[in-house]
Amino acid sequence: MPRIVVLRMGHRPQRDKRVTTHVALVARAFGADGIILDVKDSGVERSVQKVVELWGGPFFIRSGEPWRRVIKDWHSSGGLVIHLTMYGLPVDDVIPSIEGRDLLLVVGAEKMPGELFNLADFNTAVGHQPHSEVAALAVLLDKIFKGSETKKEFKKWKLRIIPKNKGKKVEKKL
Amino acid sequence: MPRIVVLRMGHRPQRDKRVTTHVALVARAFGADGIILDVKDSGVERSVQKVVELWGGPFFIRSGEPWRRVIKDWHSSGGLVIHLTMYGLPVDDVIPSIEGRDLLLVVGAEKMPGELFNLADFNTAVGHQPHSEVAALAVLLDKIFKGSETKKEFKKWKLRIIPKNKGKKVEKKL
Repeated sequence: MPRIVVLRMGHRPQRDKRVTTHVALVARAFGADGIILDVKDSGVERSVQKVVELWGGPFFIRSGEPWRRVIKDWHSSGGLVIHLTMYGLPVDDVIPSIEGRDLLLVVGAEKMPGELFNLADFNTAVGHQPHSEVAALAVLLDKIFKGSETKKEFKKWKLRIIPKNKGKKVEKKL
Repeated sequence: MPRIVVLRMGHRPQRDKRVTTHVALVARAFGADGIILDVKDSGVERSVQKVVELWGGPFFIRSGEPWRRVIKDWHSSGGLVIHLTMYGLPVDDVIPSIEGRDLLLVVGAEKMPGELFNLADFNTAVGHQPHSEVAALAVLLDKIFKGSETKKEFKKWKLRIIPKNKGKKVEKKL
């Protein structure tokens, strides 16, 4: 199986805690192997690790790793770097070129440095309208996995949902 | 064309401003006609209206409308109410039953009242893992429109992106 890791760039601990947590949970729920934040944030790390403990894994989160080094290491090991940006090529045009490869998916918090556009193998957009990096990441992963990611079974879970149309049913192994 | 409107419930102006703005921008970018917030928030209204002014429409935002009344009115006019929740039925199982109908898509900020699960015609999940209402809404709309929503052309835009693999190209009519 190819590896898929998300790199969250430009994270500002005060301002971005919630949105970055959404990005991390989307990465996990939609089939990525883990997420790296460029800026250290133990709070987000703990929130995400708590979700992994309760709902299962494997899924890793690391923070405080300089983005240039993460990208350089990824390229050295033969993987592709995909930058999600509204300015990039339509995602449906890019998918065929990246299928089956190890992917580092880069999502930014605010304006990204021009250097990143050049370092990335592909700059790709989920629609060319302003919306949300949370949404863009989810739709990209959904397209990469062709919808199968939402049926993924996690290991070592303590909580699991039994789907139903009315109300809530949760299986517990606590 | 069937109407699709998003109802954002449980919005807390202090805490949820950014995530609710992401929800609203996803609603617009992924083809919904508008969004209603149950709680008044002129700040979010202004942010979203500014995006519509620059990037085009039509798309409406209204806030401060009690959710029970919004749902009641929607049902009265013959539309379906779809509640996005991780406890619901898999989205792929629900889509065939809702295609072609007017849809009110309900996304909550935090824990939703049990009453909502009963009022909704369908409670549906994009994966049964904790992630993000922003992601769930995007993937649901992407599935409803079968990917065509990202090619939607907006009217009266002042800014429009010309996709490219490196750098940024924006067409301006200012």
